[in-house]
Order: sequence, then C-alpha cells, then structure tokens
Amino acid sequence: MGIDLTGTVIAVIGGDRRDLVLMQGLVSLGARVRAVGFAASEELKQIELLADLETAINGAKVLILPMQGTDPEGKIKTLDNSMLLLTRPIASLIPHGTVFIIGAARGFLRNWASVYGWKLLEIAEMDDVAILNAIPSAEGAIQIAMEQLPITIHGSQSFVLGFGRLGKTLARMLAGIGATTTVAARKSADHARIYEMGYCPVQFDELQDHIPAAEIIFNTVPQLVLDEKILRLVKRDALIIDLGAYPGGTDFKAAQELGITALTAPGLPGKVAPTTGGKILAQVIPPLILRELT
Amino acid sequence: MGIDLTGTVIAVIGGDRRDLVLMQGLVSLGARVRAVGFAASEELKQIELLADLETAINGAKVLILPMQGTDPEGKIKTLDNSMLLLTRPIASLIPHGTVFIIGAARGFLRNWASVYGWKLLEIAEMDDVAILNAIPSAEGAIQIAMEQLPITIHGSQSFVLGFGRLGKTLARMLAGIGATTTVAARKSADHARIYEMGYCPVQFDELQDHIPAAEIIFNTVPQLVLDEKILRLVKRDALIIDLGAYPGGTDFKAAQELGITALTAPGLPGKVAPTTGGKILAQVIPPLILRELT
Amino acid sequence: MGIDLTGTVIAVIGGDRRDLVLMQGLVSLGARVRAVGFAASEELKQIELLADLETAINGAKVLILPMQGTDPEGKIKTLDNSMLLLTRPIASLIPHGTVFIIGAARGFLRNWASVYGWKLLEIAEMDDVAILNAIPSAEGAIQIAMEQLPITIHGSQSFVLGFGRLGKTLARMLAGIGATTTVAARKSADHARIYEMGYCPVQFDELQDHIPAAEIIFNTVPQLVLDEKILRLVKRDALIIDLGAYPGGTDFKAAQELGITALTAPGLPGKVAPTTGGKILAQVIPPLILRELT
Amino acid sequence: MGIDLTGTVIAVIGGDRRDLVLMQGLVSLGARVRAVGFAASEELKQIELLADLETAINGAKVLILPMQGTDPEGKIKTLDNSMLLLTRPIASLIPHGTVFIIGAARGFLRNWASVYGWKLLEIAEMDDVAILNAIPSAEGAIQIAMEQLPITIHGSQSFVLGFGRLGKTLARMLAGIGATTTVAARKSADHARIYEMGYCPVQFDELQDHIPAAEIIFNTVPQLVLDEKILRLVKRDALIIDLGAYPGGTDFKAAQELGITALTAPGLPGKVAPTTGGKILAQVIPPLILRELT
Repeated sequence: MGIDLTGTVIAVIGGDRRDLVLMQGLVSLGARVRAVGFAASEELKQIELLADLETAINGAKVLILPMQGTDPEGKIKTLDNSMLLLTRPIASLIPHGTVFIIGAARGFLRNWASVYGWKLLEIAEMDDVAILNAIPSAEGAIQIAMEQLPITIHGSQSFVLGFGRLGKTLARMLAGIGATTTVAARKSADHARIYEMGYCPVQFDELQDHIPAAEIIFNTVPQLVLDEKILRLVKRDALIIDLGAYPGGTDFKAAQELGITALTAPGLPGKVAPTTGGKILAQVIPPLILRELT
Repeated sequence: MGIDLTGTVIAVIGGDRRDLVLMQGLVSLGARVRAVGFAASEELKQIELLADLETAINGAKVLILPMQGTDPEGKIKTLDNSMLLLTRPIASLIPHGTVFIIGAARGFLRNWASVYGWKLLEIAEMDDVAILNAIPSAEGAIQIAMEQLPITIHGSQSFVLGFGRLGKTLARMLAGIGATTTVAARKSADHARIYEMGYCPVQFDELQDHIPAAEIIFNTVPQLVLDEKILRLVKRDALIIDLGAYPGGTDFKAAQELGITALTAPGLPGKVAPTTGGKILAQVIPPLILRELT
Repeated sequence: MGIDLTGTVIAVIGGDRRDLVLMQGLVSLGARVRAVGFAASEELKQIELLADLETAINGAKVLILPMQGTDPEGKIKTLDNSMLLLTRPIASLIPHGTVFIIGAARGFLRNWASVYGWKLLEIAEMDDVAILNAIPSAEGAIQIAMEQLPITIHGSQSFVLGFGRLGKTLARMLAGIGATTTVAARKSADHARIYEMGYCPVQFDELQDHIPAAEIIFNTVPQLVLDEKILRLVKRDALIIDLGAYPGGTDFKAAQELGITALTAPGLPGKVAPTTGGKILAQVIPPLILRELT
Repeated sequence: MGIDLTGTVIAVIGGDRRDLVLMQGLVSLGARVRAVGFAASEELKQIELLADLETAINGAKVLILPMQGTDPEGKIKTLDNSMLLLTRPIASLIPHGTVFIIGAARGFLRNWASVYGWKLLEIAEMDDVAILNAIPSAEGAIQIAMEQLPITIHGSQSFVLGFGRLGKTLARMLAGIGATTTVAARKSADHARIYEMGYCPVQFDELQDHIPAAEIIFNTVPQLVLDEKILRLVKRDALIIDLGAYPGGTDFKAAQELGITALTAPGLPGKVAPTTGGKILAQVIPPLILRELT
C-alpha cells in the first residue's frame, strides 16, 4: 500500500487474536507498537509488552481498543485475561488529538472523546470494515449450522433475514454451497436485487407464509423479527442463528419454550478466523491512522 | 398481487413492444386502457386504439409515456411510427391530479407538471425499476459482446466500470459465464463487496495499470472515464460497450482514431427482451398507480 | 416414487443414525422392518427391535448392513454399541437368493455371497450413491477445515487432489464459498472440464510448482500423492484433509515430522449429516430392492 | 508448453478462421506451415500459401483438414471459397506414416487411411477437444437464444437435453446467467450430479411432464428426443436450438407444422468465436503431432 508509519507510537489495548496479526502489520509499516493485555509470544517479539494502561497510553499518538468495544463499566477484554479498566482518571491522561480507534464506543466513551478532544474512530460500522468482516462472520455462522444440524446446507431450505452487509454475504455463500436460499427484506430495491441474484425474495410481513419451510434461519436484523407468532410457525428441528446486534431479533424465551434451538454468535471474526479477521484490521486501520495524523 | 384497477382509465401514449405486455397486464387488473401510437394487433384487441393525443388524454386518470421519455421538442416514439408531439397546448388539457408516468422527464416536462399539477412519476431511476431493468440491459450488452467478438466471454478478461445497479448485474453474469471479471469502483465499501463476490476490484485511478489486459470493457459510468489517455492503453482489438447515460463515459472520437471499436447501446431492455422488459413494467407500474390514486 | 414394498421383510443389521431415516423410509413403502443393534426410540416405534443376528436374519428377504461394511473379523458397528459378529455359522443361515446390501464388502464376504448364493449389492461405489454421498462428505470436510483453520475458506488458496465424484463436489463448494480453487487431475479431459468450471487445473507432476501456495489441501486420491518430497514444499500452517480411501494419499508420518496437520475423516456422511445421509439411502435402496426381488 | 516443432512441414488444407490462429501457433513452435484454401493476409504472412492440393501435400509430414471434415464426395470447405476436392488419386499421393488430422472422418477417409497407412487422428471427439469446444458452442447457442427470444435468459425456464460434454457446459452457463435450468439425462449418476450442481434433473421419459414449462430448449442428444408427441406439449413461442450431431434430435417437420421455432446451429466454435476456437486447436494439436512423430 505504500503506507509509512515510521516512528508513530501506537498502543494496542486489549483485544483478541486478530490483534496479533494487526500488530505485525503495523510494525511492518514502521510503527512503534506497544501492547497491554497480551502474553509474550514469538509473534509479538517486536512488540513492547506493558503491564498497565497508564504506561501504554503515555506518549502514544494512536490507541487501538478491541473491535467489540468495552463493557458499560469500561472493562476491556484481553487475550491474557488480565484486568483492564478504562476509568475516567485514566481517560483524562489521554491527550487532546489522540487517535482513538475502537470497534464500537458506548455513550460514556463518546462523551469522554468529546470532552478530552480525542479523534474517535468507531470502525466496526464503517462500510468497508463491516463488509469485509461479514466474510468471517458468514463463514462462522455457516460452520455453526454445519456443526449443529444433521442435514447438509446443500439442498436445505435456508432463510436469511435482512439483506445488509452480512445478509448479502450469507445469501451468496449459502447459495454457493447449494442451499435453496430465501431472503427477507423490506425495500423493494432489495427485492429486485435478491431476485436478480437468484434467491427468493420475501417481505417481512409475508414471512409467516414461507417460514414453515425453513430448516435454517440466519437473522441479521437487530429488531424483533422472530417473535412468538412467527416462531410458532417454525419447524421444531429448525435451527436459528441470530447474528443481529444485541439484543438480536429473536424472542429467545419463546424459542426455548417451543423447543426450537436458537443461538447467538457474537464476535465471530475473532473466534472462527482470527487470521483473516486480523488481516482485515491490518488492511483498513493503517490508512485511517495516516489520514487522521496528516 | 391483489391489485384492483377496475374502471381506472389509463392512456398509453407511444412506447415500444414492452408496452404491449404492460397494457395486457393493466387490462387483467381491470383497467380501461386506451393507446395512441400502436397499430391494431391480436395482442391489443382489448385496448381502445386512438388516433390522436387529445382524444387519448381526454378523461384519463393515468398517462403512461415511454421509458426513454420524449425528445427535447416533446416528440414521443411510437411503435407504428406515427408522429406524436406533446406540445404546451396539449399539456394544458391534462387535468390537475393526473398521474403522469414516464421513464425520465426533461426539464420542460417537469415544469409543466409543476405548473399544471400533475403527479409526475419518473420511474426509470426508481431503484427497483432500475435494478430489474439492469437484467435485460446486462444480457443485451453481453449479447452484443458475443456478436462482435471472435473470442468467448468465458475465459476473457472482462472489465466493468462502475458498480451501481447495472454494474452489479453485469459483473455477476460475466463471472457466471466464466469471464475473469475486473470491476472499477470509487468507494472502498464497493471494493470490499467486489472482493467478497469474487471479482477483482480496482480504483479508477489505477485503471491505467490494469486496462491493457482488457478484452471487453463495459462502461456504466455517465462521466468521462475512458478518456484518450486511458484509451491509448487499451488493446486495438478490445471492444468497448458504453452503457452510461448520454453522453456516456467514452471519448468516442479518440477511440475511433485509435481503431478501437466503441459502441453505445441505448434502450436495451425494449430492444433485446421486450417481453421481459414489459413484465417488469407490468409488475412495478400498477402498485404505483394504486398508491397515487388512493 | 411409487415403489411398493408391502410385506417385504427387511432386516437392518447394525449401522448408524442414517439407518434411522432409512428404516422410516422403508416402513413408509410398506416393508416389514426389523433391526438389530439399535436402542428403542420414538423414531423406531414401527420397527421390530431384535436382540441377536440369528433372529434378525430368520425369514428376511433383504439384509441391510452398514455403509462402512464390517471389519476383517466380521464385526459390525452398531448404534447401541452392542456386539454383532457375522460369523460363518451365522452366514450359513442366510438363504440362497437373499438380497444382501452393504456399503463395501471385504473379500471373505464376497466369498460367502458366492458360496451361499446371496445377491450381494455393494452400494458405496455405485455411481449415484457415491455422487450423492459426496455432498455430505464435501460439506463435512469443509466444516473440518473451517474448525481447524484461523483463516476463512473465502479468499483461501484451496487445493483439491483428484477430480472424481468427491473432488468435483468439493471444488464446486469451495469456489461457491469464495476460495481460489486449484484441482490436480491426471486426464486432459478433466483439465478441460476444470478450466471450463473456472478452477485452475494442474497435473500431478506439476504439483510441486503450485503446492507451496496451498493453505488447505483436500486429497481424494487413494494413492500416495502427498509424499515426503511434496510435503516438504507445503506450508507449515497449511491443513491437509485426506479423504482418499484407506490408507489415504498422504505420508502422515512425514507430515507429522514436518509439523503439518494432516487429518483423515472417514465416514463423514454418517457423522456430520446423518439425516441427509439417511435420505440418500432411503432414496437409492428401495429401487435396488425392487429390482432384485422382481 | 515447451513443444518444439522446428522444421516439421505441416500443410493446412481448407478450414475456417480458427485455422488462422492455429497456423500462427504452429509457426511460433518452429513448424514450416503451408496452406491451401486461404487468401493472403497480414495474419498469414509467415505461411506459404499454395494453390492446389497436390503441391500442399508434397513433402508434408502432417496434414490438417477442417474440424467439420469433408462432405461425402471429399469436398473440403475453404475460407477463400476455392474448390478443394480430396480424390482417390490425390489421396494415393499421401505417403505412408503421414499424420492426418481432421475433426471427423467419413467412412471413405477411414478406409483410405487404412489402405495408405496414414496416422488418422479424428480430434473432434477426443474428450479434451470436445470439452474445450463445448465452451464456444454453448456460448454461441446462448447468443442465438438471446437474439431470437423477446425474453431474457435470466429468469427463463431453460431445458438442456443431454448431460454430456456440451450439456454440462450449457447448464452451467445458463444457471450462471440466472436461468432456472432443467437437465434431462438417462443415467442415475448424471441425475445425482445434476442435483448436486443445483439444476433440476428429469428422466427422458418424464420429459412430457416438465416440457410444457420450457421457454428455451437446447438439445444435445443425437437421437430423436423431441418427437411430435413431445413437441405437441411445447409452448408455441418456445425456442428449440438443436445442437445434436446430424440429423439432430428434433422432428423439425413437426415443429414447423406446430409453429415452433427450431434451429440447428452447426459449427458454432468456428462461427461465433473463431479466435477462441483457434486457440483451442493451437493448444491441443501440437502435442498430438509431437506424440505421433516421435
């Protein structure tokens, strides 16, 4: 890419195995990378491993936090299971103008970014990141379906609810394996595209007429679409994999009472394909840093 | 669809063979359909064929003009080659509240719609219409490439410039036949999707590095992208099919001087697949009429 | 299918979860089905469950043994882990003309079939059975690859060695997900078809030039193709899944010494997709029975 | 390929535009190429153009005749429309051991080859040639369908009769464009593969139940499959393209009487994609020559 980060001090604060790939990528572009929350390993031999947040922050121009963000109390997931907590006193140490990269920020973080003048980049919802991440997410969801079900994806009646960034990728892969693929979407333009791509388009308000055929249902919509009324029409041995943002689109309690298996699957890219997920971060983050720093 | 147009008087004013299918569809929904610019035929036996615009307009709640619109003087294409001219005096006869459906309206028509209070619907650019029409357009373009070239699409180096409604369909079909498919797009989100779908994404400003390999180039961008500088890098026996809206994206004069065949192909759906094109109109127009009249 | 097996006494002798689906299918065609080696369950309520082989054989016109056959001593796998042994004395009780269906028979069984005059049907290698079974086998192998690897199938360099019944299905699914798919085959006709289908064809004796790129290698050839010389060229973090009939096509010892993960995966249809695998049996076995009995 | 034909004298006797590409390929491998039946052109500047058969044959180690063979009287098609006739007296001049390459030889030619000791290679039916030629044939057939029909291939009900070398390619391309694709085949193994690939398999004796839905029918079977009884069930506005070897598989007289358009399309690769067709010849012929001469 010809991106040069020589001398830029970057702190990676918590994260998962994707960040191992990301850090190697940053180093290869010349950055000085430090990390907190990671155990020493061969892969990190060029990384300065630190023990606490304050030291990691000190002097860093760029902070990279996990794709899944923090919890509401500011707790940050780490690969070595050490405890990292982003508190207000620590936040106050982060200088004005720091590039603060995170998957998704909660309200308190957005506040602090505004108060302390950080350049906050929430990258999970950036279009290209989300589309690229849809690849490991879709494969991970298909892997779960393969593991859970006594039938093949090929020849199955697979439903995808929602035709956004993840829904498009899921539908293409399912059809590529050989499933009969039905996609529920709201917009008539999406219906036209679904038809053009060879899947069966349905409206959400027609779902009740089609869902009884479903053997696998992938939901990508972050609103209640699989409510009790619809669930009553779903086969008992069908599988629901809910990939919609928390709290998902399934009435899980009703599903349980009806005896239908309904699973959530958060953070798939980091779990099922951390190398691919890490390459995505290593591809999208350096141009963002460059843009913000210049 | 359960759409009922019983008793609605609809005038179809000029058009092409698609309108034969459309009119049959409207009749089947109960509409009273009259037409001007069509010769009598078996297919139109339930249609009242009229000889002039004034009579056609008189009493009609809905007017349907051609997808390709009028020319700047208000001239309307007809299937029987009769002369139809939409003049201001005639326009003044169209009552307030009339639903006026046309592919694309020129400025003077938009003015008149505003002055006389018509409900003007320009449907060519509606997303679902444009996506559905991309199917016959893409197939028509591929047919032209097959006719013009001594090589097969399969195994060819095919380029699609632009990844909008038509570009997406073209890329999918070309890859479906077996072409190595490169897609030029501006947005990084499009690049992510192009990669996910298995095509090769390139930036427009990298085109010069890749275009020398091209054997077939489909342009869908309505701006000058194939300028003389780029054309000088194109193989002499490559074929350019320019599908961008007038005036297209090719410097046709430069192409000619360089000995590169560059074709435009306007109005493909009406020419290469009028039945499919007509079914699309018969699918999208009735719900629009219903919505406007109620 | 219109197949009528009314009154035909069929004994299912050992097997796996596929046979639960098969037995239900046979019952639905009118057969009187008895089984040995299965625990009582809701699914088998119409099946007469017996405790020993002799009773099961007595009076049966058709015997169905497992797809994976027996072991060299005549031991038969059962779902309830009971011990079933097909000995010569028991074999001598099976009357002349009995239809004896098994996946693959060892030499001693073929002998007995000839000596005692059974109609021996080895169905695993019948072309249609093998092609249909290739679907769950290919999906199962892809599931294993997804589970084992930190990268996605999409975007990976996937190799399929052999372009027979399983290789064809694997290549299609891998490409359908989005892998760059290379297929090694011996015949030039296969190379032509591999090229036509959009994969990259290579000769086995060219494998050394291409294999260093491989991230996932699926072998389907039952001869040593991944020998130490080739394995030395394989990436250390590549994954080999060997699906060739025993003893496979990989030098597993060399792979281990080189630190390359190489797995076998026998009996995939019965393990990963028993319902689909069972439907395949329920589709192909009844016409065979009908043909043999009439 | 590393094939060296230095000094080998090859005579190309008649043919079509494919042979222009073939001759350039042979020259690039070092062969001394002469031709009869071609007009002088820039492309042939390295070829010795001769006026009569006798001169062309004299001293040639290899003779290459057209893919479509001769007519029953020995007449050979030429690109310059000159008259070339392979008579017995001329044949007697061709020495023992000459490599005689032709698409398909009639009985009299096979006789002469045996009598005079030529190494006769009929390449059209060689598996790899036939599979590679199926690509331009299938595309050519699809081009004809696009030209003839007022509907798109996408969304159409397309039927392919026969699942051999051409049928497989046709089905894949039709589905790749977006047709609903039904394939008729005789063998149950083919049905299994058709199902695996996502098309709808039917038996020839079930054709009567499915053919009424057909909008496009591609026949590849060289036996009467579309007889009057079946044709009576075909839609009047369906299109039949018969690609089966002469006399094809359609009762053309019955089709005409029923008002159904039924076309033959012989020699598609040479007509619709001579460059691709020529590249195929230039790929497969040199290794054959090398093998025969050594």
